[in-house]
Amino acid sequence: MIEACLFDVFGTLVDWRSGVADVARPMFAKRGIDVDPAAFASRWRGEYDPAMARVRSGARGYVPLDDLHLENLDRTLAHFEIAAQFDEGARAGLNRAWEQLPPWPDTAAGLAAIRAERIVAPCSNGSIALMTRLARHGGLVWDCILGAEVARDYKPSSQVYLASCAALALPPERVLMVAAHNGDLHAARALGMHTAFIPRPLEHGPGQTTDLVAEADWDFIAADLTDLAAQLR
Amino acid sequence: MIEACLFDVFGTLVDWRSGVADVARPMFAKRGIDVDPAAFASRWRGEYDPAMARVRSGARGYVPLDDLHLENLDRTLAHFEIAAQFDEGARAGLNRAWEQLPPWPDTAAGLAAIRAERIVAPCSNGSIALMTRLARHGGLVWDCILGAEVARDYKPSSQVYLASCAALALPPERVLMVAAHNGDLHAARALGMHTAFIPRPLEHGPGQTTDLVAEADWDFIAADLTDLAAQLR
Repeated sequence: MIEACLFDVFGTLVDWRSGVADVARPMFAKRGIDVDPAAFASRWRGEYDPAMARVRSGARGYVPLDDLHLENLDRTLAHFEIAAQFDEGARAGLNRAWEQLPPWPDTAAGLAAIRAERIVAPCSNGSIALMTRLARHGGLVWDCILGAEVARDYKPSSQVYLASCAALALPPERVLMVAAHNGDLHAARALGMHTAFIPRPLEHGPGQTTDLVAEADWDFIAADLTDLAAQLR
Repeated sequence: MIEACLFDVFGTLVDWRSGVADVARPMFAKRGIDVDPAAFASRWRGEYDPAMARVRSGARGYVPLDDLHLENLDRTLAHFEIAAQFDEGARAGLNRAWEQLPPWPDTAAGLAAIRAERIVAPCSNGSIALMTRLARHGGLVWDCILGAEVARDYKPSSQVYLASCAALALPPERVLMVAAHNGDLHAARALGMHTAFIPRPLEHGPGQTTDLVAEADWDFIAADLTDLAAQLR
């Protein structure tokens, strides 16, 4: 019996690559910068896992993802040799791109359908502040916001899934983890959670090579969130 | 400029006394117990502040309110000399009354109107699990759930208000605290938050003597949540 559904957000529910590129594009144009905004988004996102790894390993205390994004932005701007063209205000503006990412077309309706019957919450590495603004931007409705900030650690550390279930006063066996990433589901299953895979073959753009298909016998494998809602019903 | 509104919940948004009495009444009738369910609710609630005081003082680590409620229930049943008639399952059932409290008539619509323009979140002493289920029961929609569990402390400790603002990445000066309790607002104002008072003259039943009126020049004094939504607009 599944009482709550937890969702990965970046990639699974929202299109971070297009969203970041859409905010970067006019800022680049205004400055006469000839950098592909989508490549910029991918590079910025590429700094994501190494930054979190330091927190996961204990080398660094918990820092909200918003701050890691800003640090990673400095590194990304330096890589493209355009750091001088972005002052503090412009960097903050770029960083807010993560609060304005577009949901995939099926996300809002699928999530609402699932919420009609079960508790829904993000179990993302994004902070409460980021998840709150992102949901309002995209018209997503959550029952509460769980994930990294509740656990003060980053996925795929067990603590993030366990603290999220505990915050709902539910054992993992009554919670479903939904993600477009097989690795996320492996971590959740190891703790006793149910698992649902949704492919997002354009998350990394047209040349994506990872997470194109379910790589294990997840409890649910759905075409999109609307399909998952139907399967859960 | 107010970007987010935080709400006290018990008494301000929901009628805990009627709600607890409504769950207790049939359980008492089934057992032939002659105790006034509303008096039982008031007595149970009377144990609330002393239990939290031990956490606030540091004498005890953070324990979710659900657990304090259950401990306080034991004490309350003993007071009325009816403990023997409630086994563990029945006590758990009574404790779930706190997840089923009815919102005041203006709450859902008023909250939705405020949410259309600003971030809304509870800043209650209730746990995330309790706030989540209470909101679903009453048809309330939150952007996220803040308060005691985020801070691992209980109001009126400063940390609960400050951690709630920090979780939204907002300074207190851009957050409004809404409550039917003057004490809650004094604590919030001392930290720089905006304040809004809504009287709930029946929270403690027809003989209520406290918090009947605003006892300071709060930034907003409204008849109910619908009125507050209009004033904020």
